Amino acid sequence: MASILRGKLNESRLLHVMAAHSPLSAKLAEETGFDGIWASGFELSALYGLPDLSFISMTQHLDMVRAMSGFTHLPIVADIDTGFGNAINVTHAIAEYERAGAAAVVIEDKTFPKVSSLAITGRQELLRIEEFQGKISAALATRRDPNFVVIARTEALIAGLGEAEALKRAAAYEAAGADMILIHSKQNTPDEVESFVRAWSGDAPIVIVPTAYPEMNEGRISALGKIRMVIYGNHAIRASVTAMKDVFARIRRDGGIHTVNKDIVPVEEIFRLQGMDRVKLVEKQFLR
Amino acid sequence: MASILRGKLNESRLLHVMAAHSPLSAKLAEETGFDGIWASGFELSALYGLPDLSFISMTQHLDMVRAMSGFTHLPIVADIDTGFGNAINVTHAIAEYERAGAAAVVIEDKTFPKVSSLAITGRQELLRIEEFQGKISAALATRRDPNFVVIARTEALIAGLGEAEALKRAAAYEAAGADMILIHSKQNTPDEVESFVRAWSGDAPIVIVPTAYPEMNEGRISALGKIRMVIYGNHAIRASVTAMKDVFARIRRDGGIHTVNKDIVPVEEIFRLQGMDRVKLVEKQFLR
Amino acid sequence: MASILRGKLNESRLLHVMAAHSPLSAKLAEETGFDGIWASGFELSALYGLPDLSFISMTQHLDMVRAMSGFTHLPIVADIDTGFGNAINVTHAIAEYERAGAAAVVIEDKTFPKVSSLAITGRQELLRIEEFQGKISAALATRRDPNFVVIARTEALIAGLGEAEALKRAAAYEAAGADMILIHSKQNTPDEVESFVRAWSGDAPIVIVPTAYPEMNEGRISALGKIRMVIYGNHAIRASVTAMKDVFARIRRDGGIHTVNKDIVPVEEIFRLQGMDRVKLVEKQFLR
Amino acid sequence: MASILRGKLNESRLLHVMAAHSPLSAKLAEETGFDGIWASGFELSALYGLPDLSFISMTQHLDMVRAMSGFTHLPIVADIDTGFGNAINVTHAIAEYERAGAAAVVIEDKTFPKVSSLAITGRQELLRIEEFQGKISAALATRRDPNFVVIARTEALIAGLGEAEALKRAAAYEAAGADMILIHSKQNTPDEVESFVRAWSGDAPIVIVPTAYPEMNEGRISALGKIRMVIYGNHAIRASVTAMKDVFARIRRDGGIHTVNKDIVPVEEIFRLQGMDRVKLVEKQFLR
Repeated sequence: MASILRGKLNESRLLHVMAAHSPLSAKLAEETGFDGIWASGFELSALYGLPDLSFISMTQHLDMVRAMSGFTHLPIVADIDTGFGNAINVTHAIAEYERAGAAAVVIEDKTFPKVSSLAITGRQELLRIEEFQGKISAALATRRDPNFVVIARTEALIAGLGEAEALKRAAAYEAAGADMILIHSKQNTPDEVESFVRAWSGDAPIVIVPTAYPEMNEGRISALGKIRMVIYGNHAIRASVTAMKDVFARIRRDGGIHTVNKDIVPVEEIFRLQGMDRVKLVEKQFLR
Repeated sequence: MASILRGKLNESRLLHVMAAHSPLSAKLAEETGFDGIWASGFELSALYGLPDLSFISMTQHLDMVRAMSGFTHLPIVADIDTGFGNAINVTHAIAEYERAGAAAVVIEDKTFPKVSSLAITGRQELLRIEEFQGKISAALATRRDPNFVVIARTEALIAGLGEAEALKRAAAYEAAGADMILIHSKQNTPDEVESFVRAWSGDAPIVIVPTAYPEMNEGRISALGKIRMVIYGNHAIRASVTAMKDVFARIRRDGGIHTVNKDIVPVEEIFRLQGMDRVKLVEKQFLR
Repeated sequence: MASILRGKLNESRLLHVMAAHSPLSAKLAEETGFDGIWASGFELSALYGLPDLSFISMTQHLDMVRAMSGFTHLPIVADIDTGFGNAINVTHAIAEYERAGAAAVVIEDKTFPKVSSLAITGRQELLRIEEFQGKISAALATRRDPNFVVIARTEALIAGLGEAEALKRAAAYEAAGADMILIHSKQNTPDEVESFVRAWSGDAPIVIVPTAYPEMNEGRISALGKIRMVIYGNHAIRASVTAMKDVFARIRRDGGIHTVNKDIVPVEEIFRLQGMDRVKLVEKQFLR
Repeated sequence: MASILRGKLNESRLLHVMAAHSPLSAKLAEETGFDGIWASGFELSALYGLPDLSFISMTQHLDMVRAMSGFTHLPIVADIDTGFGNAINVTHAIAEYERAGAAAVVIEDKTFPKVSSLAITGRQELLRIEEFQGKISAALATRRDPNFVVIARTEALIAGLGEAEALKRAAAYEAAGADMILIHSKQNTPDEVESFVRAWSGDAPIVIVPTAYPEMNEGRISALGKIRMVIYGNHAIRASVTAMKDVFARIRRDGGIHTVNKDIVPVEEIFRLQGMDRVKLVEKQFLR
C-alpha cells in the first residue's frame, strides 16, 4: 500500500483523499475514484458518539485501519494525532500502523492531551520544535518500508502563532525528514493557507484539509502549485448523518418504510458491497 | 434497560425499533423518537464490508452493543443469530449481552453455519424443535434480570416449511418460555406474515421485520393486532450508503467540497452529537 | 463490587490485594484468600511483551478488567496510570471502568507521557497540585456509585521531591476528595514509606505497593497503623515467568514432557478452573 | 514467517512447538530454543477462565496471534478448531490468520459446536469427508503465500471410529492438499498413535500432541519416523498455574512477599523481556 501511495505521489498530480469511518465508506470512496482514504480520528470518534479528544484508543483506531485495509485497495492515510505520547510511543505506533496496512500517517505538533479549542483559549500549546523533530525522526527510524509516508502536521496557524512560525516549523519538520507537510487552518476563507503556500520555499509537498474553507477547490489548489494532497475531512460522516436524520424522520412520520424504500439504495446494493457474489462462487466451489 | 423495554411492552402499543450500526446512528434514532434499537448483525457486517455469515464475531458485536448502550437511552434489542453455537454457547452469550447493556436478544432457529440462501437451495435447515427449546430454556435460566426479553425467531416460512410448521414452532417456543415470537418472511408482500398472524392463537406478542414487504406499515399492523414490535432492519445503513455515494460523486465531479457543503449537516451538528457542550462544561469545571 | 470493597474497607483491617494479568490469575488469587485484585498495567504490559509506557491502550486494559470482573468475585482495583489524559479524559475513563466492573481506580500525579525513569533523570515531573485535584474532582463527579473508590497516588518521593512535598500533595488530594492515598517509593528499604506514614496526619487511609522493599510485611505494616491496603504488584507475572522458564527448559533438555508432567498441575485442574463442571450440568439440562 | 516454517520443515528434523497464551510466553519459548509457537485455543480459553467450547471468539484469538507475531520471531501455528463455520468461513479465517502473521493453521474435522466430550457420549460427530475436503481446498485456495502451512487434524480416533477410518480420512485430507496430518488421541499411552503412524503410508508428514501420553518423547518419536512436528499443548498455562498457586499461598501464609521474593525472577528480568533496553536507546536517540 505504501508503494502505491508513493507511486501516486510521484505522478505529480493532486491526490484526492476522502475521510472514512468504516470499511464500507472506504469502499464507496474507492468506487467513486478517490486516490486514498483518510482514516479519520474525528469520523471514528463521531461514529462512537465521542468527542475527538483521544477517547477513541489506538486499539480502536488500529482495528478500523486494519479492517479498511483488508477491504479497500486504496492507500490509507492514518490520522494518529500527536502519536499517542512522546517519541517512544511514536515508535510503537508506527510499527503498529504499518503492520495494520496503513500507507501513511499524519502526526501533529500539538501537546497531549488535546483541549477543546473553543473552550479554553490560550491552551493550544505546541511541542517545542526539537521535540517534534525527535518524533518525526523516531517515525522514520521505525518504518520498515521506506515508502511509508510520514506527514508532519503543524497547528501553528490555529495556535495563533502566525505564518512565520508556521513556515519555520514546516522547514524544521522537513529538515527532520518529514515526507510532506500538512498545514492546518480554521479560518473560513482560504486566505491564510494560500498565503502560507505561496510563502513556502521548501521541497516537501503540502497537504491541506479545506473543511473550514470549502471554496478552496481543485482549481484554486492547482493554481497555487505545491499542494499534492487534499483531504476531505468529515464529509462521509456528515453525509451519513444527514441521510439518517431524514430517513428516520420520514419513517416515524409515515408510520413505516413504505415511502422511504424507493429513495434509498436497495438491499441488493448492500449485498453487492458485502461481496455476496464472491460468497456464492465460494459456496459453489467448496461447499460439499 | 431491560425494565424500560418491559415497561414499553406493557403499554400495549406498537414499538418501533430502528436498526443501528453505531452509537451515532442509535442516537439519531433516539432523537427521532423510536422506541428501541436493533443491534443488527446485518448492518454491522455491512459496515465492515463483510457478508452476514458470522464473519463478524461475538466480540465485535458485543463491543458495538456496549458502545451503543453507553450512548443511547433507548433499550437495545440484540440480534444474536443462532446464539453462537448450541445451548452452552447461548448461556455464555446471554450473560455477555446482558452485561453489555442489551435489553433483549433475538435467537433464531436456523442451524449454524448460515448459508447464503440464494445460492444453495435446500440447505436452509432448521434445528429440531426440542433442540431450539433447549436454547430458549438456557437463555431464560441464564438471564439475571427477569425483565431481559428473549425473542425466538423462526425461519420456518423462509425455509419453505409452510405456515403450519411456523405456527407449531412458534407455539413450542412460547411453551419453552420465549417472551416474544419473531416471524420472518422474505416474500415481497405482507400476505404470508399477515396470514400467520391471523392464525396465531398464542399469547406471546409478535415481532416483524418488514424489510421485504415495506407496505406493511403501522396501519396494516395495527389492524391485525397481536404484533407489538416492528423492526426496521437495514434502513440506517441503506440511507448512509445512499448519501455517501451521492456526496462522494459530487465532490469528485465538482473537484471539491464547495458545492456539497451546504447540502449536508454542518460540522457543528456533529460536535453536538459528540457532546461537545458537556466537554466544555467539564473543562470549565475541572481543568485547572 | 464497589460496595463489597467499601464493606471490606470499613472492617478496619489490612486488605491484601494481588496483581493479576488475566481472569485465570484473578481466580487463583480469589481461591487463595486475597481481598482484591490489582488490575495491573505493568503485568498486562508484560503479558504482551511491552514496556509499561502506555503502549497498552485503555481498550485493552478495560477488556481485561471486564473479563476478570465476569470471572472473579473479588473487587478489582484498576491501575489507570495518569487517567489517559487530562480531567476530561478522566471522566471518560471513570465511566468506562465503572461500567467494566472495577470497584476502585488508582490515578497517579505524574505527567503524561511516562518516561523510563532510569534512563532520563530529571524528567519525572509531576502535575501541578491544583491540576491533579481537578482530575480527582472529575473522577468523583463522574462515578455513579458513591462506593466506587478513588485512590490518589503520589509519585513525589520517586520524583525526589521529598517527604514534605509528598505529605503536602497527599493532604491536597484528600482535600479534593480522594478516598485513599497511595504512597509510592522505589527505595529498597521500608524507611522512606514508614517515615511518610508516621508523619501522615490525614484521615484518608494509606495504600502501599512494597515491591521494592519486600521486608515490609504484615507485621511491620500493622505496627504502623494507617495503612489499609497492601498491593502485591507483580508477583503473579514473576511467578509465571519463573515456572515457564523452568518447564520450557526441562522439556527441551529432556526431549519431551515425560519428566515435567508430574511437577505441574494436571490438565484436570485447568478444566476445574474453566468451570467444566458447570458446562456438564448445563449440557445435561439444556442439550437435547 | 510461513517461509521460515517451510524452511524448518524442509530440514527433515523433528520440530518442537510449544503452546503459548501470550506474547510473553511465546518469547520465553523462543529463548528456550523451541521451533515454533502453538497459538492454542485451549490455553487462551484457560487464560480467560472459559471452557474450550468456542467461547473465545476469532477476534480474541486473532488479536493474540497478532500480538505474538509482533513479538516473537518463531513461526506461529494457529489452532483454528473447525474453522469458525463451513468452507466460506474458512476462507475468511485463512485470510485473517495469514494477515495476523500466522505461519500455519490446524483445522479439525469435528462438527461445530463442540461438546464437552466427557459429558455427552456419542456426540463427537465428524464432518463428512468430502465436506472437510472442501474446507481444506477452501483454505488452500485462499492463502496468498504458498508457504503458509495447512494442517488437517482428524479426530477419528477420539470419536471412536478406529484406525482404519483415521487412515482413510488422513489420506483423503492429503489428497485434498493438506500439507500435514495431525493425528489426535486421548489414550493415556502412545500405542494408538504409534500404531497409526506405522500404518500411515501417505507422504504428508505427521503432527502429534502427546499431552495424554507424555512418555512419547523425542526418542520414541524419532524411532517411528514420519512425525515431523510435536506440539506441547498446554504446558505453559499449567506451569503458570502451578507457580501462581504456590506463590500466592506463600504470600498469604507468610503475610507478605519477603519470603517468596528470592524464589521468583526479579523484576529486572521482566524489564528485560519488555525490551526496556531498547526503550532506553530510543529515549536517548529521540527524546529531546
